[in-house]
Amino acid sequence: MSCKSKGINGERDLVHQFWALGLACQRSAGSGSSRFPSPDLIVGNKTRKLAIECKITKDSKKYFTNEEIEALKEFSDIFGAEPWIAVKFKKTDWFFLTLEDLNRSNKCYIADVNMAKTKGLLINELISDNY
Amino acid sequence: MSCKSKGINGERDLVHQFWALGLACQRSAGSGSSRFPSPDLIVGNKTRKLAIECKITKDSKKYFTNEEIEALKEFSDIFGAEPWIAVKFKKTDWFFLTLEDLNRSNKCYIADVNMAKTKGLLINELISDNY
Repeated sequence: MSCKSKGINGERDLVHQFWALGLACQRSAGSGSSRFPSPDLIVGNKTRKLAIECKITKDSKKYFTNEEIEALKEFSDIFGAEPWIAVKFKKTDWFFLTLEDLNRSNKCYIADVNMAKTKGLLINELISDNY
Repeated sequence: MSCKSKGINGERDLVHQFWALGLACQRSAGSGSSRFPSPDLIVGNKTRKLAIECKITKDSKKYFTNEEIEALKEFSDIFGAEPWIAVKFKKTDWFFLTLEDLNRSNKCYIADVNMAKTKGLLINELISDNY
């Protein structure tokens, strides 16, 4: 399976999970190809709206370019949504991270599996009313 | 140009117009093929969220199936968005209609060009603060 189809299947898996938990979720057509910022997923209910960039990796680290993070911030700011990163490592569930959770280098942002297990939220925690 | 690509180009045109007017807009990947309700466009700013089903036609009437309208209602209700229909006839701009604006038959909902010109909003009217 190609990287791209693995990514799309991963996003579809999250779409199913959000709907099953009672939130509406839409996958973007334009992710990566649109000239406008476009998060992979928009998720919402009457009280919260989330813009989510999703990544799957077999490695223990996943990198996000500055441009990806800036686009997520821009979309979220204009649309009125919380910006979130969803990342899934080998044999882990999806972890949800804020932009502040990510580690920083000069050229990119980094999520690693140990940081994600420490700071990340599981989907149930993400959408809990207590968050 | 096929019907499908004409539809996609029409949606892209609307995406551009919304961004130019200062609203964030995302085109759906799943429209028509997803098992979950998925409007063609989600549009928003900090105060309003719109779920929009888009149609282009060369005729003077455009039909919407009951299923399309129910899916738009369901998504909008769960996500917390206003449901809107965008329809563009030959040589007209896009008109934005509420579900109540549409005419009704047993099997479907109908927008016709005269009704759209009378009841429809232009994009500037749709996003005006006065609406």
